[in-house]
Amino acid sequence: MSIIVSMNELLQKFETRVAIVGVGLIGGSIAAAIRKRFPECDVIGVGRSRQRLQAALDAGILTGWETSLSAEMLQRPLLVVVCLPVNLIADSVAEIAEKAGPETVITDAGSVKSDIYTRLSGNKTALARFVGAHPIAGGEQGGFEHADAELFEDRVCVLVQNDNTEQPAASSIERAANFWKAIGCRISRMTAEEHDRVLALTSHLPHVMAAVTTSVVGVNNLPMTGSGFRDTTRIASGDAALWKEILLGNPTQVISAIDSASALLADYKRGLENRDGQLIEDLLRDASKCRGKLT
Amino acid sequence: MSIIVSMNELLQKFETRVAIVGVGLIGGSIAAAIRKRFPECDVIGVGRSRQRLQAALDAGILTGWETSLSAEMLQRPLLVVVCLPVNLIADSVAEIAEKAGPETVITDAGSVKSDIYTRLSGNKTALARFVGAHPIAGGEQGGFEHADAELFEDRVCVLVQNDNTEQPAASSIERAANFWKAIGCRISRMTAEEHDRVLALTSHLPHVMAAVTTSVVGVNNLPMTGSGFRDTTRIASGDAALWKEILLGNPTQVISAIDSASALLADYKRGLENRDGQLIEDLLRDASKCRGKLT
Repeated sequence: MSIIVSMNELLQKFETRVAIVGVGLIGGSIAAAIRKRFPECDVIGVGRSRQRLQAALDAGILTGWETSLSAEMLQRPLLVVVCLPVNLIADSVAEIAEKAGPETVITDAGSVKSDIYTRLSGNKTALARFVGAHPIAGGEQGGFEHADAELFEDRVCVLVQNDNTEQPAASSIERAANFWKAIGCRISRMTAEEHDRVLALTSHLPHVMAAVTTSVVGVNNLPMTGSGFRDTTRIASGDAALWKEILLGNPTQVISAIDSASALLADYKRGLENRDGQLIEDLLRDASKCRGKLT
Repeated sequence: MSIIVSMNELLQKFETRVAIVGVGLIGGSIAAAIRKRFPECDVIGVGRSRQRLQAALDAGILTGWETSLSAEMLQRPLLVVVCLPVNLIADSVAEIAEKAGPETVITDAGSVKSDIYTRLSGNKTALARFVGAHPIAGGEQGGFEHADAELFEDRVCVLVQNDNTEQPAASSIERAANFWKAIGCRISRMTAEEHDRVLALTSHLPHVMAAVTTSVVGVNNLPMTGSGFRDTTRIASGDAALWKEILLGNPTQVISAIDSASALLADYKRGLENRDGQLIEDLLRDASKCRGKLT
């Protein structure tokens, strides 16, 4: 399913009020993208720390903030983007949906999806309002101070093609899709399971591989590293607590990806043990050709 | 052992003639660095393809070229830098040393070292003239067209502390050290074995890990990758034939590094299977703390 809307239509249709629950790197970047492109839109930050929220307001990426979304706020048209760590998203969605009026749509930015839908299973109210999303963008430095209004420019945003019996209305899906497009994303629709299988490969495994490479090298050998190591391990400096939740939110698929990587490492080892230059070169060439296709 | 020389002394002492055997990315960058910093110095490219050498001359990074170094050329003071693929270095060093006069010093830029010294074992002529080196710098795009005169700026160059009975003269080691420093490097001295053990971790393993990550993801999933994958796998697009020789030139140490990585991957897998958040977070935090030390 593809939704084609011109930028003019997007501009006309854009939300008047957006609430960002969790104003970190991702939430902050979404807020900054809205502020830059749609200065008329209210951008309300929601979080625990008044001090942090006020700082984000002072930084100009919010127009207001709250420590929670009141039922009253949720009665007027509102698009809510839940940008919390993945393990907290389902509960937040459920809580917001409970109080939400008919013109509230909830989306999120979590990098695992099946776990959220499993947790929301049977919750008709939540499933009717929630359009799960994952904009594939990020950075290893957390906090709204690193927010980037262009973070989502030309990045894929997966919208979950929910196969539960309870579905959001087509108009809600359209509002969510238009929202993500308006801040720069290209929309791709897939099921939560398909998303998690692919992201285990394209995002979760690379994080584990970068972390493993870093740990094997160790602090003492850092002076002997070059730019290759620097790039290969950059994402390993990301937040450990956040990534723990991502990996634990998608354990089966990440285990499968680790198994594939381990099997390939065993192939390299076998090639080296047998001094099998052809095998080693074939393995390297496969990777080189594949990586060369990423322009 | 540390050699401290002021930049003034380096400028006074710099070579009058340097021959670069193999004018690819590394050889070309060395040539470019010399041309930029020491325009009085002759920079002679040596290679098989007259056309490529002439193109490098036309690009201004050489002052002359030859398809081989004649005995006559090697009688005058000359510093030779062998920048061939690692499997070809020992033979090239032996051949040049055979014809070399007393004022010729040979160094190289190979990223594995023990194998070269093993191949030169017993060759007194070669061992007396050869100061093995490895400037830790590179790029995934080959060819002198990608040469960068600043490639070696502030990079570590390992000079091999040869423990063979036959040693180059202290003055030869000093000439080689001064050469690498003059084009930007910081000198670190270690044995060939120590070099290969550390580089297996800091360079050869990261290449294998990047290649494995790329192959596991595969071409079809590339549209779903983000900047994390892009950085983590950049080096995987390097030249497969060149990297095959590097890995096969250091098989024991690379196997040991792969074993360490496989064991850590197994830890992650166990943590995921047991839903052991503490283990996963500890593993990730170890990597994050280590990577955070690389400024």
